Amino acid sequence: MSGMKLGFIGLGVMGRPMAENLLRAGHELLVWARRAESAQPLLDLGARVLPSPEALAREVDVLFVVVTASADVEQVLLGAQGALHGLRPGAVVVDHSTIAPAAARRIAAALARCGADFLDAPVSGGGVGAANATLSIMVGGEAAALARVRPLLEKLGKTIVHVGPSGAGQVAKACNQMVMVAAIQACAEAARLADAHGVDFGPVREAMLAGSAGSRVLDVFGGRMARRDFAAGVEARLHHKDYALFMDEAARLGAPLPVAAQVWQQLNGLMARGWGRDDSAGLLRLLEAP
Amino acid sequence: MSGMKLGFIGLGVMGRPMAENLLRAGHELLVWARRAESAQPLLDLGARVLPSPEALAREVDVLFVVVTASADVEQVLLGAQGALHGLRPGAVVVDHSTIAPAAARRIAAALARCGADFLDAPVSGGGVGAANATLSIMVGGEAAALARVRPLLEKLGKTIVHVGPSGAGQVAKACNQMVMVAAIQACAEAARLADAHGVDFGPVREAMLAGSAGSRVLDVFGGRMARRDFAAGVEARLHHKDYALFMDEAARLGAPLPVAAQVWQQLNGLMARGWGRDDSAGLLRLLEAP
Repeated sequence: MSGMKLGFIGLGVMGRPMAENLLRAGHELLVWARRAESAQPLLDLGARVLPSPEALAREVDVLFVVVTASADVEQVLLGAQGALHGLRPGAVVVDHSTIAPAAARRIAAALARCGADFLDAPVSGGGVGAANATLSIMVGGEAAALARVRPLLEKLGKTIVHVGPSGAGQVAKACNQMVMVAAIQACAEAARLADAHGVDFGPVREAMLAGSAGSRVLDVFGGRMARRDFAAGVEARLHHKDYALFMDEAARLGAPLPVAAQVWQQLNGLMARGWGRDDSAGLLRLLEAP
Repeated sequence: MSGMKLGFIGLGVMGRPMAENLLRAGHELLVWARRAESAQPLLDLGARVLPSPEALAREVDVLFVVVTASADVEQVLLGAQGALHGLRPGAVVVDHSTIAPAAARRIAAALARCGADFLDAPVSGGGVGAANATLSIMVGGEAAALARVRPLLEKLGKTIVHVGPSGAGQVAKACNQMVMVAAIQACAEAARLADAHGVDFGPVREAMLAGSAGSRVLDVFGGRMARRDFAAGVEARLHHKDYALFMDEAARLGAPLPVAAQVWQQLNGLMARGWGRDDSAGLLRLLEAP
């Protein structure tokens, strides 16, 4: 692996610590960022900046992408100065963004025509998981392509699961987000019910953590609710974005998701209140607000 | 503690292994059971059977109760031959049943008039937790009464949390059941969404377990869904009973529980299909059924 040249596009909350982990593992790293200043911390660590995704793609064996939405990934990969126009045959593009499974399949097909492999590889674990390289990475695409980049992914996360063909990683991420935010909402309802009974949610949560209802969400988001700490954390607007993505797909596929539908409406309510940049633990406030 | 005489009422799926753990810890144990044959395994281990809750209460310092519903607890404690008529002043009654917080408060008040303490102490962890003494025990009532029986509770569970005054243990249990079954339903929706995309839920669950959506429910009930093993486990009708209890309280208190309301309707659907004695993992089948 050490001879491989790596490229990285997207140096935000998730991308920057991930890129740093690759640099620290001793890899040569080339970067491109829409906002030049976001590349600076990486340059200070020895990365080199290129003027476009296309220019970056010409030099690298593996290209990592961590941007926001389907349109952003399509822009940097398939757009006018997109990586597609520079990628070498045999290159592997690893997209850690959370996008639509259908977009991942489309991009994989476009790159395949140039002889490059595309892996959809969204992650779970947040900024802390990115910094500590403890992410869970859910991979869709060819097993052979995953095998080639697995040693690199092991610098970014502690669990790497090959879920299935192109798009399957994004399906797993959709399931992950759906279940996580549903758990946050259920937590909020538990806190609300306890309060309605005049019972402090702190010890309720403590007892629940040790029983059948124990979960990471109850630990992290339940803790924020117990402390009434609604500053992000995880900005609720990002969960809202994720929900829009898979609820739309579910409608197209005819998959009934009654609880997810309800959670989505609560997220809508939270956005309407202007709480989208606060933590999703703020779903509790929505149950309390006059 | 070793000089204390203990009583036990209710020797079902949960009660029997709990009573056995007290016997194995070397305590003298008197039992009463509606169905005499359910006491036999305990008698074989050295327990003694009494003819009524009242007769049992005359002899014991601490009385444990593990029955099904509010009416059952009221019957064995406050009924015609109920423990109330025999309890010594200073005795402690520990009720591990899942009942309404209001019923727990009523019973506590009735026993207090006889100089006995009542702790509502519902448990989470199921039959396995009862057998292995790893239950989470959520206690409502006087801290001093809990202090007296805590060494006994430590023979039954590994986490004992004093949640608050009478009824608070039951409030915690309600929160626990609400969050747990909401998580089961969310899991079912994730499995359904993965399937709609043609993606195997097995590796999806595996990836999720390592990320932010990880939970005991995803491990246990998600595992059953991935294996399509819908045999109980936990009989869905018991979750349905729990939901009825706290949704009713929530309505009385004016606490909005939008996701719990949706989960409740799914449990209604599951009961209507005649799947109440199967596992709650069967909520998945309800999303698939033609």
